[in-house]
Amino acid sequence: MSVEKVQIVEKILDANDQMALENQQVFDQEGILAINIMASPGAGKTSLILRTIEGLSPQYKIAVIEGDTAPVTIDADKVNARGIPVTQINTGGDCHLDALMVRKGMQSLNLKGIDLVIIENVGNLVCPAAFKLGSHNNVVVASIPEGDDKPYKYPNIYRGIQCLVLNKTDLLPYVDFNLDYFKQGIRMLNPTADILPLSSKTGEGMDAWLAWLRARIGEKKHAAK
Amino acid sequence: MSVEKVQIVEKILDANDQMALENQQVFDQEGILAINIMASPGAGKTSLILRTIEGLSPQYKIAVIEGDTAPVTIDADKVNARGIPVTQINTGGDCHLDALMVRKGMQSLNLKGIDLVIIENVGNLVCPAAFKLGSHNNVVVASIPEGDDKPYKYPNIYRGIQCLVLNKTDLLPYVDFNLDYFKQGIRMLNPTADILPLSSKTGEGMDAWLAWLRARIGEKKHAAK
Repeated sequence: MSVEKVQIVEKILDANDQMALENQQVFDQEGILAINIMASPGAGKTSLILRTIEGLSPQYKIAVIEGDTAPVTIDADKVNARGIPVTQINTGGDCHLDALMVRKGMQSLNLKGIDLVIIENVGNLVCPAAFKLGSHNNVVVASIPEGDDKPYKYPNIYRGIQCLVLNKTDLLPYVDFNLDYFKQGIRMLNPTADILPLSSKTGEGMDAWLAWLRARIGEKKHAAK
Repeated sequence: MSVEKVQIVEKILDANDQMALENQQVFDQEGILAINIMASPGAGKTSLILRTIEGLSPQYKIAVIEGDTAPVTIDADKVNARGIPVTQINTGGDCHLDALMVRKGMQSLNLKGIDLVIIENVGNLVCPAAFKLGSHNNVVVASIPEGDDKPYKYPNIYRGIQCLVLNKTDLLPYVDFNLDYFKQGIRMLNPTADILPLSSKTGEGMDAWLAWLRARIGEKKHAAK
């Protein structure tokens, strides 16, 4: 029975990869940068997204796809309150978004004129790593109070990312967190990802993150011309 | 294809439930209390376990089953350094423990004379909720910096628990956390679970948690006689 299960999972992954590729082609045609934000619950994905909207809007037009395991609209409401188009995907208890869910999210948004689509994945450091969505960049938001050993304990999620945002630096004085040990763990898994410490609460370090996004949005717009 | 997938998952869950029941019978025969500790990554499961060992040992004999998605022994080493028997289960990337993994862990430990088995699940607020292990009590460790909205966003994990440990109360002065809103979210899902705020770092509130465990260990020993 376990063999049968593995076969089915592989088929689903194949189909998912194909659909992710098609999602990315749609983003490319529209000159949109799409990023997939992953994190454990409570690392501050939504706060980072709200700060990002503050920093980039109205210069850039942003849309958000919110993944949630439950039909609550807490995060989507916060984004919506900023006047940003947002669609919420309820995974029905599933521990990650997949490419089909994102496609449905894309279809429910009007992508014309959008510069940046932010996909907020389900809060989970394990499952989202295995499912491509069609995003150009994968970002993990880690946070200081989670501890410095997470790269060693949840390695897969850090392997396929281009940026690691280390959030809640304002809590550094109050918790034991060895930044060198943390960075060493990331580097072991991923030699090239940018590591950007910041605080969504105080705004410290946000400039580097916004610059990181601006550069990539610019490239996409340029390539689509 | 999706129908086929659902059927297989159901079969696995049935087998898992049966095996969980058998695990629990073994614990019962030995007069052991078994608890399953679930949390998002970095909520402080391991720190709580180390503090619990400090508080209950040597009065009670404790053994620990550590679930990890990767073959690192960071948590198991910490427990082992306290002279406590510990077995580590590497889930091979899976996002939760299941009853078969716990059975293997039980077989690799000598359970004779043990009073309390602590099972540390994989750090994840979604997947572990669906898999019984054979524990008598399920505990979620939440933490202050994760935010007060987690019960609303990850409801399933809170439904089947008997105790909610709210860790890292020492960080309350530095983060926005509405305790009433959090408790209201828990109560909506689970009217009876004990809610125990504490700090594994300062030790504040640990007494109530240790008393909670002592009462249940005593009941199990009594029932086995």
